[in-house]
Amino acid sequence: MDLKRYLDVKRKIVENAMDRYLPSEKTEPRTIHKAMRYSVFAGGKRLRPILSMASFELVNGKGKSILPAACALEFLHTYSLIHDDLPCMDNDDLRRGKPTLHKIFGEGMAVLAGDALHALAFEILLKAKNSQVIEEVAKSIGTKGMIGGQVADLEAEGKRVTPSKVAYIHSHKTGALIRASIRVGAILGGANGKKLNALSRFGEKIGLAFQITDDILDVEGEEKVIGKKTHADERKATYPKTVGLERSKRIAKELIKSAKNDLRGFGKKRTIFEELADYIVSRVN
Amino acid sequence: MDLKRYLDVKRKIVENAMDRYLPSEKTEPRTIHKAMRYSVFAGGKRLRPILSMASFELVNGKGKSILPAACALEFLHTYSLIHDDLPCMDNDDLRRGKPTLHKIFGEGMAVLAGDALHALAFEILLKAKNSQVIEEVAKSIGTKGMIGGQVADLEAEGKRVTPSKVAYIHSHKTGALIRASIRVGAILGGANGKKLNALSRFGEKIGLAFQITDDILDVEGEEKVIGKKTHADERKATYPKTVGLERSKRIAKELIKSAKNDLRGFGKKRTIFEELADYIVSRVN
Repeated sequence: MDLKRYLDVKRKIVENAMDRYLPSEKTEPRTIHKAMRYSVFAGGKRLRPILSMASFELVNGKGKSILPAACALEFLHTYSLIHDDLPCMDNDDLRRGKPTLHKIFGEGMAVLAGDALHALAFEILLKAKNSQVIEEVAKSIGTKGMIGGQVADLEAEGKRVTPSKVAYIHSHKTGALIRASIRVGAILGGANGKKLNALSRFGEKIGLAFQITDDILDVEGEEKVIGKKTHADERKATYPKTVGLERSKRIAKELIKSAKNDLRGFGKKRTIFEELADYIVSRVN
Repeated sequence: MDLKRYLDVKRKIVENAMDRYLPSEKTEPRTIHKAMRYSVFAGGKRLRPILSMASFELVNGKGKSILPAACALEFLHTYSLIHDDLPCMDNDDLRRGKPTLHKIFGEGMAVLAGDALHALAFEILLKAKNSQVIEEVAKSIGTKGMIGGQVADLEAEGKRVTPSKVAYIHSHKTGALIRASIRVGAILGGANGKKLNALSRFGEKIGLAFQITDDILDVEGEEKVIGKKTHADERKATYPKTVGLERSKRIAKELIKSAKNDLRGFGKKRTIFEELADYIVSRVN
């Protein structure tokens, strides 16, 4: 199966499952369920759930036991985007080519819809029946993970930052949840310690490369293709701003090369994972 | 032990434990940990953790295994207050006699500090090693619990609402987490189904009575004693506005009376719980 087809198939599986886990638009209070669904189904690559499923399969996990965790990861990602887009944070009007949630439902409802997806994610995560997985996810989105990165990002606005600071921001803001997605798949698939470690290193590298690519797309990408405003990061700590555009591209490519090396012990099945890694830096949106 | 002493002793136990569970102010990124601590230690009655501990003891739970859940409940309550106080929600400048978090740390950091306490609560809750408890809590703060009530509250602003609507708002916005606190204590203390049901009914009633009392204090209380602006609820759906002040007081008292009836099967130990119920409606802040 080629990568595009693979991504399509997995995306549909995840979207169907999310549809089942989310309360319907007719469930009271309707507004919040409409708001949650608006953001969850506004599009998106579903990268985190797909990575968790790919990782699960790579270590020979069987069946559908990965699905609840996969959906929970996407709910958490969506909650973080909703809050990130708020006027008091990044103040973005457009996401995935559509008005951001607060533009349609108001800021108060956007705060609550983010909170609700956050809570729902943990409710769904329980279906994985694995406390290590819940702990992994909770830590990855806390102050030593995603939120830590968001705080540093907010504080770096308009300031000159060092390359190590921007690496910290990126590997936490974006990397932590991507790494956790891969680890969650591996844990639920029954990976041994050695494989879990190798996949964690892989996850760290592609997570960082993913955010560097986001920064590059903000400079070079097309608004219509990306679905959000470009040149929106000019006051933010980005790789292109800190080390230059060419060096940023080189770093992203080197990270992917090194990440692929981490997969050496995984046999033939690793092909799809290598392609996923290449996709991270070659994507146009 | 009289009630005041009991509340003081329990409050100190909870506050010491929360201090241990919260990252220190010197842990990076410092700002978010300072912000989380600012709100958590700005005061508060610690009613939810105390109810969970009281319930745990009432069903003969032994040892300290209730403590992580007790702290998690207070972290969740604090997160909800931080988000509730935001300009896009209730727009409150004062909470517990101190400036609200966003007044000191800015709105973006307040959103993130709430999010971080939300995530930390689930991390700590895992220490209870009981998935029923995590599910109970996750549901109580979701769209069919606390957030559902907040949404209805937000939507009712400036509108005439029916008594049944305001009952829905209160029993969800405030009641759900109070009920969950009591249930969590009972579950971890090993209550049987009959006792758990009785305590659930008790929790529902005192949760609703608690919020009605809040509404009454907004009309009749003193700003200095309550620590927040009074007459702040004039555009909101409240009991006094919907059924009048005197009837609100009567309803609150009847709820407490009926709640105490639910405790009949619990023997002598129930005294402290009865006093807690009385305190809910007689408190001045």
